[in-house]
Amino acid sequence: MADNLLSSIYYPTDLRKLDELQLPQVARELRDFIIDIVSVKEGHLGASLGVVELTIALHYVFKTPDDLLIWDVGHQAYGHKILTGRRENFDTNRQLNGISGFPKRSESEYDAFGVGHSSTSISAALGMAIASNLKGDLNKQHIAVIGDASIASGMAFEGLNHAGVTDANLLVILNDNAIGIDPSVGALKNYLTSVKNGKNPKQNNMIKSLNFDYSGPIDGHDIFAVIKELKRLQKIKGPKFLHIITTKGKGLKQAEEDQVKYHAPGKFDAKSGEIHSKSEENLPPKYQDVFGLTVLDLALKNEKIIGITPAMPSGSSLKFMMEALPNRAFDVGIAEQHAVTLAAGMATQGMIVYCNIYSTFLQRAYDQVIHDVAIQNLPVIFCLDRAGLVGEDGATHHGLYDIAYLRCIPNMIIYAPLNEIALQNILYTAQLGLNNPIAIRYPRGRGVTVDWQSNHLGNNNSIEIGKANCLKTGTITAVLSNGTIGKNVTEALANLNNPNDIAHYDFPFIKPLDEKELHQIFTQFSSIITIEDGAIIGGFGTAILEFASAHNYNIPIKTLGVPDVFIEQGTVTELQQLCKLDVKSLELIFSTK
Amino acid sequence: MADNLLSSIYYPTDLRKLDELQLPQVARELRDFIIDIVSVKEGHLGASLGVVELTIALHYVFKTPDDLLIWDVGHQAYGHKILTGRRENFDTNRQLNGISGFPKRSESEYDAFGVGHSSTSISAALGMAIASNLKGDLNKQHIAVIGDASIASGMAFEGLNHAGVTDANLLVILNDNAIGIDPSVGALKNYLTSVKNGKNPKQNNMIKSLNFDYSGPIDGHDIFAVIKELKRLQKIKGPKFLHIITTKGKGLKQAEEDQVKYHAPGKFDAKSGEIHSKSEENLPPKYQDVFGLTVLDLALKNEKIIGITPAMPSGSSLKFMMEALPNRAFDVGIAEQHAVTLAAGMATQGMIVYCNIYSTFLQRAYDQVIHDVAIQNLPVIFCLDRAGLVGEDGATHHGLYDIAYLRCIPNMIIYAPLNEIALQNILYTAQLGLNNPIAIRYPRGRGVTVDWQSNHLGNNNSIEIGKANCLKTGTITAVLSNGTIGKNVTEALANLNNPNDIAHYDFPFIKPLDEKELHQIFTQFSSIITIEDGAIIGGFGTAILEFASAHNYNIPIKTLGVPDVFIEQGTVTELQQLCKLDVKSLELIFSTK
Repeated sequence: MADNLLSSIYYPTDLRKLDELQLPQVARELRDFIIDIVSVKEGHLGASLGVVELTIALHYVFKTPDDLLIWDVGHQAYGHKILTGRRENFDTNRQLNGISGFPKRSESEYDAFGVGHSSTSISAALGMAIASNLKGDLNKQHIAVIGDASIASGMAFEGLNHAGVTDANLLVILNDNAIGIDPSVGALKNYLTSVKNGKNPKQNNMIKSLNFDYSGPIDGHDIFAVIKELKRLQKIKGPKFLHIITTKGKGLKQAEEDQVKYHAPGKFDAKSGEIHSKSEENLPPKYQDVFGLTVLDLALKNEKIIGITPAMPSGSSLKFMMEALPNRAFDVGIAEQHAVTLAAGMATQGMIVYCNIYSTFLQRAYDQVIHDVAIQNLPVIFCLDRAGLVGEDGATHHGLYDIAYLRCIPNMIIYAPLNEIALQNILYTAQLGLNNPIAIRYPRGRGVTVDWQSNHLGNNNSIEIGKANCLKTGTITAVLSNGTIGKNVTEALANLNNPNDIAHYDFPFIKPLDEKELHQIFTQFSSIITIEDGAIIGGFGTAILEFASAHNYNIPIKTLGVPDVFIEQGTVTELQQLCKLDVKSLELIFSTK
Repeated sequence: MADNLLSSIYYPTDLRKLDELQLPQVARELRDFIIDIVSVKEGHLGASLGVVELTIALHYVFKTPDDLLIWDVGHQAYGHKILTGRRENFDTNRQLNGISGFPKRSESEYDAFGVGHSSTSISAALGMAIASNLKGDLNKQHIAVIGDASIASGMAFEGLNHAGVTDANLLVILNDNAIGIDPSVGALKNYLTSVKNGKNPKQNNMIKSLNFDYSGPIDGHDIFAVIKELKRLQKIKGPKFLHIITTKGKGLKQAEEDQVKYHAPGKFDAKSGEIHSKSEENLPPKYQDVFGLTVLDLALKNEKIIGITPAMPSGSSLKFMMEALPNRAFDVGIAEQHAVTLAAGMATQGMIVYCNIYSTFLQRAYDQVIHDVAIQNLPVIFCLDRAGLVGEDGATHHGLYDIAYLRCIPNMIIYAPLNEIALQNILYTAQLGLNNPIAIRYPRGRGVTVDWQSNHLGNNNSIEIGKANCLKTGTITAVLSNGTIGKNVTEALANLNNPNDIAHYDFPFIKPLDEKELHQIFTQFSSIITIEDGAIIGGFGTAILEFASAHNYNIPIKTLGVPDVFIEQGTVTELQQLCKLDVKSLELIFSTK
């Protein structure tokens, strides 16, 4: 009986031909299908397993794609993709030229809105619903499925606050599983838990206060109950809110029990659920662990140090400090804006705050960086993990714009370490007492030095602010690299026939620039090449162009970086090749220089 | 009896020497003082009048500056400034080298946190309160005063959500007057109104759901009641929330009756309250009105057109469309993030959305511009009012970074009109059907053409995307200006002795650049000067540097713009002088070229 229903479902129209009583079997098959593929191809597991019944029920009851369905964040949309035309190429998920790991408009008409970052679904669905009203499509349904971690983000509240005063045909479904990537936090989470436990009278709940027609909580794994409720809600006009309770990882025992690990577990045994653990011995460290362990190390010696993460304790590795020093390390939930201004408030009181936010998510707190930190010149330490090309998460998650959007802000120091030792040293330097805010950007993935922890932090590790370093001398062309991409330069230069022509400088500081070194370089060399793991417009190379213009240097400068297009998913290596930032491409550029 | 109490109050310590029964007199005097000065010197009136009693009560009960007091936004902090050492120079408010119109840390130790943009106070105060806990300052008080418009913004919710699970010594005071700059909107506002009217049981309110100790609502103009409640709350540990009801403009009849106009009324008669109305006849239009009237004009002819403003119907002049076409023009409250993604949702359904956000406030929705609009290449039309130097509002409000932070985003078109006719034409062009999102940036203040409305929009008004215009020919140097600052160039060139040397090009498109014209210019001229009303780092001039580098042009390029420091308040003319962008400075630069 395995697979015999799912294999005949290409689109929701096929699903809708089935009898409701057959749907539990579809759920089992869909769950197995997701587990089978993700166990081999990797990806996000737990979230999609948790909404299998909901996914089937939604496409069964509603007339997708005419009815518009938005999955907030989109980690949970694998089942949706499989039921909407992408079962047969689901094994290309998150690969170069394959399907995206997130819903994406250009990929399918069933993906009503592209997602990736959290808490956008209510606003987008409301916009669609208002448009439908204006167009007279009064029966069209607009559905936002959002998790309890995402709904606690300010943007979701803004959407609810507006929706509640409209007559828009909007259905918000709260998928309450008490966890995002890490367990949910905050007062709203506690409130939702009390609702689940029957401790809050339904007639007076927060959502009703915002003028929504609230129903629930109901068991999100009881497919008949979900279908029944969706059918009821389908007939009700105006803003509606359905609260369902699910279990992340549902159907795979280990995934239910260790929800953090099975959010995106890597390869595992589809039958037993066991993760194929790779030995981490003799591997260089992940940059996130260099951050997490170093900050803990520093915090143990300096009681003014505080760590903040908006909902990424595991991803940022701030979890080490959260475990050891829970009073001084904070997961504030998906609340980047709050995280930054909270850090600013702490900094006014003399605390030394490491505020760790992925580069792509700091976009959410851009105003707070300018308005609450930089204008007041508070020495908050921004640690931007996942800067540069991030790989399989694709266009929504690359951290490519931070250099451009931070460089224009007065007072900011911007640093990108060449390697994990430099990261360690700048983290050490930052707590010695800077006079400015600093942004430290470092990539996803691993460094190069297995025994990095033999770098014992002390006075020798202090980094001079603004200082560049000559890594290799040369005679004709100077290559100025910023950040870990400098490794590609070193490797490319090692392969050249004419290596003596080319000098290599590490410019970790994008701001302030090492102007003294630059004057020397512009005087000494006939041409310059810059390279960075970031958007080519407005980035590090551009800073060098601005320097040259300000000082009337007129030698040729070639800037290398990520071109001005959105880069889709692929491995980091593949994407570097695409952007011609890989070792081979650099060799070619250097040898024709 | 007039002034005899206030004139002896220099600091809150003086206030605290008074008997509580004398405080109503202080309130009367403080109100009169604010009215007297603001009637002559201009500034924000209504908000400060509304919190006179609260201001006195806070400084009377709490031990400022040791207790930390944060005024959200800060429009309402004039009374606070006057009672905390700035009475005698309050007449320099908002002037060059005077005191700031907003609380500012560098100005006074009583200004615990710099403000200007809304909804930051809870996060900042919570950060301070957590720091105090860690330092063992367990009796220190941390107070955020926030209005009902500001608390509806997502960031405030994020702060409340976190605060509710801490034991931080935080007091949030909701100053509920049902208005921001324009009347408050949204479901939360309706909820608060129902609470005020006694229609919601106190024991089940939203704020309590977030684990705050809620009290109120109380009459914020009953100074004894406010003092009594503050004294009670002073003794309670943990997160507390006091809901007070006030009247914006309290004490000046006209200001109470027309709260929008008296938010910042300009000069008025202190006795009668009458605004000294200036005749607007024969004045060129405000750019905001060119936007507001043109969009209405276009919307009347094209039913797909929608207007969105986050809480600035008056300031953006979207009010014209809101009045005429209320179904298609939306004030979504202080919710820039939501505004942008709502626009994106509408755009997916074929609507043509003009999303009007001040340049400085678009910083709040930066991620949404990238993630929800640009990645999906949705043709949302961003209208960025108050771009460039804005004058008296100072560092928090200048719109200086938009060019840099938008230019790095793939798919974006960025346009700055030379004048109001160009603004009109680009607004017309945008609804003809663009294939990309566009950002149209224009300044605060007035244009140059009194009879601008004689420009009847039609096919002739369509602007070719990317096209630059030669305004004046020349032989040696080409000046490339972007936006309305081009007027200064024209005037400076008219005053030169050697005007034939210098050509002047209007480059309204920052992206895409007019590359064809640029190739001609770089071939024809010996040097180039760029000028823009925006941050010099990463801006329009930088785009020209990037073009030159990409095409191996090595002639000198001088870029003029706002230097890499935060610019304080002053008139726009004074600030242009400071930045050497005024006509006289340009004359000097052009004549020494």
